[in-house]
Amino acid sequence: MPARRTHRPGLGSSSWRVLIGRPLRARETSTQRISPLEGLSALSLDALTSVAYGPEAIIVVLAVAGAGALHLVLPITIAIVVLLAILVFSYRQVITAYPMGGGAYAVSRANLGTAVSLVAAASLIVDYTLTVAVSIAAGVGAFTSAFPSLSSATVPLCLGILAVVTILNLRGLGETARAFLLPTLVFIVGLLAIIAIGLIHPIGSSIPTIGTSLVPTHDLHAVTVLLVLKAFSAGCSALTGVEAIANGVPLFKEPREIRARRTELLLGLILGLMLLGLAILAKRWHIGPRSGQTVLSQIMAEAVGRHWAYYIISLTITLVLALAANTSFGGLPVLASLVARDNYLPHLFSQRGDRQVFANGIWVLAGLSGLLLVAVRGNTNAMIPLFAIGVFIGFTLAQTGMVVHWYRLRPPGWRRRAMVNGTGALVTATATLVFLVSKFLEGAWVVVLAIPAFIFLFTRIHRYYDQLGVDLAINRVPGKPEASRTLVVVPITSVSKLSLHAISEALSLGDEVVAVSVVLEQGEESDEHERNLVRQWSEWDPGVPLTLLRSEYSSIVEPICGFIDELRDRTTDQIVVLIPVVIPEKLRYRFLHNQIDLALSASLRSRTDIVVARVSMPLAVLEAEPLGGQDPSTD
Amino acid sequence: MPARRTHRPGLGSSSWRVLIGRPLRARETSTQRISPLEGLSALSLDALTSVAYGPEAIIVVLAVAGAGALHLVLPITIAIVVLLAILVFSYRQVITAYPMGGGAYAVSRANLGTAVSLVAAASLIVDYTLTVAVSIAAGVGAFTSAFPSLSSATVPLCLGILAVVTILNLRGLGETARAFLLPTLVFIVGLLAIIAIGLIHPIGSSIPTIGTSLVPTHDLHAVTVLLVLKAFSAGCSALTGVEAIANGVPLFKEPREIRARRTELLLGLILGLMLLGLAILAKRWHIGPRSGQTVLSQIMAEAVGRHWAYYIISLTITLVLALAANTSFGGLPVLASLVARDNYLPHLFSQRGDRQVFANGIWVLAGLSGLLLVAVRGNTNAMIPLFAIGVFIGFTLAQTGMVVHWYRLRPPGWRRRAMVNGTGALVTATATLVFLVSKFLEGAWVVVLAIPAFIFLFTRIHRYYDQLGVDLAINRVPGKPEASRTLVVVPITSVSKLSLHAISEALSLGDEVVAVSVVLEQGEESDEHERNLVRQWSEWDPGVPLTLLRSEYSSIVEPICGFIDELRDRTTDQIVVLIPVVIPEKLRYRFLHNQIDLALSASLRSRTDIVVARVSMPLAVLEAEPLGGQDPSTD
Repeated sequence: MPARRTHRPGLGSSSWRVLIGRPLRARETSTQRISPLEGLSALSLDALTSVAYGPEAIIVVLAVAGAGALHLVLPITIAIVVLLAILVFSYRQVITAYPMGGGAYAVSRANLGTAVSLVAAASLIVDYTLTVAVSIAAGVGAFTSAFPSLSSATVPLCLGILAVVTILNLRGLGETARAFLLPTLVFIVGLLAIIAIGLIHPIGSSIPTIGTSLVPTHDLHAVTVLLVLKAFSAGCSALTGVEAIANGVPLFKEPREIRARRTELLLGLILGLMLLGLAILAKRWHIGPRSGQTVLSQIMAEAVGRHWAYYIISLTITLVLALAANTSFGGLPVLASLVARDNYLPHLFSQRGDRQVFANGIWVLAGLSGLLLVAVRGNTNAMIPLFAIGVFIGFTLAQTGMVVHWYRLRPPGWRRRAMVNGTGALVTATATLVFLVSKFLEGAWVVVLAIPAFIFLFTRIHRYYDQLGVDLAINRVPGKPEASRTLVVVPITSVSKLSLHAISEALSLGDEVVAVSVVLEQGEESDEHERNLVRQWSEWDPGVPLTLLRSEYSSIVEPICGFIDELRDRTTDQIVVLIPVVIPEKLRYRFLHNQIDLALSASLRSRTDIVVARVSMPLAVLEAEPLGGQDPSTD
Repeated sequence: MPARRTHRPGLGSSSWRVLIGRPLRARETSTQRISPLEGLSALSLDALTSVAYGPEAIIVVLAVAGAGALHLVLPITIAIVVLLAILVFSYRQVITAYPMGGGAYAVSRANLGTAVSLVAAASLIVDYTLTVAVSIAAGVGAFTSAFPSLSSATVPLCLGILAVVTILNLRGLGETARAFLLPTLVFIVGLLAIIAIGLIHPIGSSIPTIGTSLVPTHDLHAVTVLLVLKAFSAGCSALTGVEAIANGVPLFKEPREIRARRTELLLGLILGLMLLGLAILAKRWHIGPRSGQTVLSQIMAEAVGRHWAYYIISLTITLVLALAANTSFGGLPVLASLVARDNYLPHLFSQRGDRQVFANGIWVLAGLSGLLLVAVRGNTNAMIPLFAIGVFIGFTLAQTGMVVHWYRLRPPGWRRRAMVNGTGALVTATATLVFLVSKFLEGAWVVVLAIPAFIFLFTRIHRYYDQLGVDLAINRVPGKPEASRTLVVVPITSVSKLSLHAISEALSLGDEVVAVSVVLEQGEESDEHERNLVRQWSEWDPGVPLTLLRSEYSSIVEPICGFIDELRDRTTDQIVVLIPVVIPEKLRYRFLHNQIDLALSASLRSRTDIVVARVSMPLAVLEAEPLGGQDPSTD
């Protein structure tokens, strides 16, 4: 009875299994899918943590015009919150209309055509990669400012966090969401509480301020429209990440559209409240940019003083900044799977791993952002100018697509909806332009080059798959299969049970069988080997001719390939090469066997005119009593 | 007409070919084989360069007893030269008696039994590895003493030289010999000339001496027998390498025994002359150990002064010291091939590479000595106590074996020959013992542990091959092969030309064909895929049933393995799994194909109850016009 073994699902060693968890059934993925609250920790940290730099970005731009301009922070923030409301409204519609996820890609594919959807896909991929790198670098940057002695370990720390986030996502987004839930809640509740305290009864306003003000004491510039536009665009960076929920709809528990819409709304409300609250406090306390102090830190210190609450929230912000990288891991693999299903990326991206996640997308995202982190050495500033452009291109395309969507379907109230989305498209397009122009030389040109490069790649891949479909006539009814005569070639080295096994198999498979043996012309020893083989073969007389292939070279692969070429010229039979292999039970015994079967398989792999088959014999040599005795059983 | 391609011999990229050279025919190896003069540069540098440390070793031991003991250097050297004569005489007989090479291993295997021959093999392997590391480290050490700024690069320099020597040997020993011929000749002719000048008309004896004498001014110890014995044994290190020619007989041009014997004699004459000449000069000029000056350097300076000749020979000595590593590359691979042929090492060692050298032995020797160099950081002193013991065990066994050899064959004059070899055996055994005892704690214990470890490995390997021979009944006439019914399982993913091709092949191979397709239960999309497949299959109606394997996991490999297990229970037919594969012409397109065939092949590789076959289809998609157009040709 030949050996048989039960195949457990999944490859990999047990230590890998401990990290990743056992393979999951498709229906078990419900445990991996996320609720609205978990959606906040898994897909919305990018957006939520932008309160750490969004208001600051506005104030820094305004401060250029002097302290007098700082009162504009509130109206600009209100405008941004209105845009946030438009985006939330819009993406909630996108979720309903495109429940397979993909956000801007799906919307523009359905409404604006393939070409535009590829722009959306490319810009989202660029931005998701940047988001991972920027968030992790920002989190590590905040951490190493607190512990300067660790700043030499910036890159290893970045890669370490990246590894943790990657492994959590390979386990499944559900686990990631639950792992991130506590810091997310501490962050949201804590910051909202601080804002509430600040608005009602500030505790810390009498404490001394830290750092020196960076606001010019006299007005340097008039407050121009361009300046307001720049401040608005800069503040718009607070909106990045709002699209992630719509991209990752399939990650939610059923009924997924409802849960995703609820998460989007929740995100909009919390983010809007935070932005408004911070803007009101910033205006009330005349907060300006200070050296060594972020705007958020100043507001928190004024509200609750530099006590434990301040430090806990500061630490939490550091942590959730790093965890915000996860937003991309929720969005990109789903997006890539959709793009792959449309034949614009390798199909590997649409295959689920054994934890039912799109593992290939996760690996590629981790690889790309890891390279980026190493390339810029974990320096956030190098990546900031590239950031947000991709997302805002996506925003613009999604909004425009929704306008077309309403126009096509014309449901009740479509004009109002189209108007809202149209406004959103106009505003986000303006912001995209301001980003591009103001940051072009600082690095935005990289994005301008990367997006067409991705689109070129997409179209090349698509053309390959198209042609593949034509060549293979996939999904077209082919002719009837016909059996043909078969000639089996069996390479052998000696007369043995293995040869018997192989020749028996060959006789079962083919109409004609030829045994071949390569004889290396290396002097007396090989001559003797040849004489022995011929004598034993005629003694055995297996009813199959033995062809000797003499070779002056030391490789045995080439003579066999040459023999097959000759056969090919002589016969129209289907040629099968049946390679006999001994499989020792322990891997370490492999070294004791000539690896000729591997070399032969590899050489024949690229030949399309033959069928390559392996017939193996089990061996249990030395297994039963490893240090002595003999166990000749072969099962 | 299916695609076909001509197979060039050998794997590897063109840059590797440039390094190693094109594959050679067996008969072309005559160009790789060496003449007596080349034998000196390829196999004798280890022995010849020992004049750089042999006389010094004697003098250092004697100097412990004060300046008065130094006159013993001449009689001790004469004794060593007599031993050299015995060894040369003996190994010339070994060459004639065992022209396949292997030296001490071959002699003791034929005359002293298997167990003793394994001791010889193990000790030679240990010593050859040490020889490589010691010679390279000594050469680099001499070089970095001249250029101290390079001493931090000791390990990279060592590994660089190791790489050069390894590559030269992979090309073939002939090329190595020719590459080393010039420095070898400069070294031999130069040093003999210096000795001659010193004996006849010294030029530099009036120049000031460098360094301070390390000889005690008054006699500290009586000159005991033990001291003389220690000095003799220490000087015996000058004899290491004398065995290499007998180990590597097959490397010589035909008639190889004659050429090898000639080389051995040449080596003996040159080495004997050098040792004697140096001893006479050392005694005449009262040379003792000095700080920062070797004995050889002192003698050279006295003979020719510190002029250009002195510097050229000093530099050459540095170079040939490093090149002496080559002796092991000549000896060990041949030895390992013989041990492998006797089933005590993996058979891989007896396979010739495509340059007809024993490439696996070369690689393993390079790997082991590279590890050793890194482990001791290129420090010669750490390895010196381990050195020479292995060779002297080999000497002793070879001499003893020759005594038995003469006694067995009893040719004319056998008593005289046996007497000579018996004396040699006694003397070398004594030297081995003195080495072992005096250096045991300094590191010789490593050798004492390593040799039994190697022997344990040899016997394990031998038992495996023995059992393998029994299990496979190699060279015994097996029963008659019989054809059995065959059931072919074809995994398919869609209805296409590839499926047609695969089913046609399956019908040609088997009596019964079953197509299987794994359907992943991952929601609507996979349900639709299933419906499509079933519909298209019934439209096609290829005359073969299609079995759908539903899986909740995302792997498609496990359901197929499970199906095969089920079949195995139902039928006694031979099961063949025929995996259809698309082979794109360019490697980079592989990423666009699911690598399911690779995963499936890997999973099924260890199953011995089935035959695994691959049927491939050529694809020339996008080849003709890479940037556009379509070329549906498949040739």
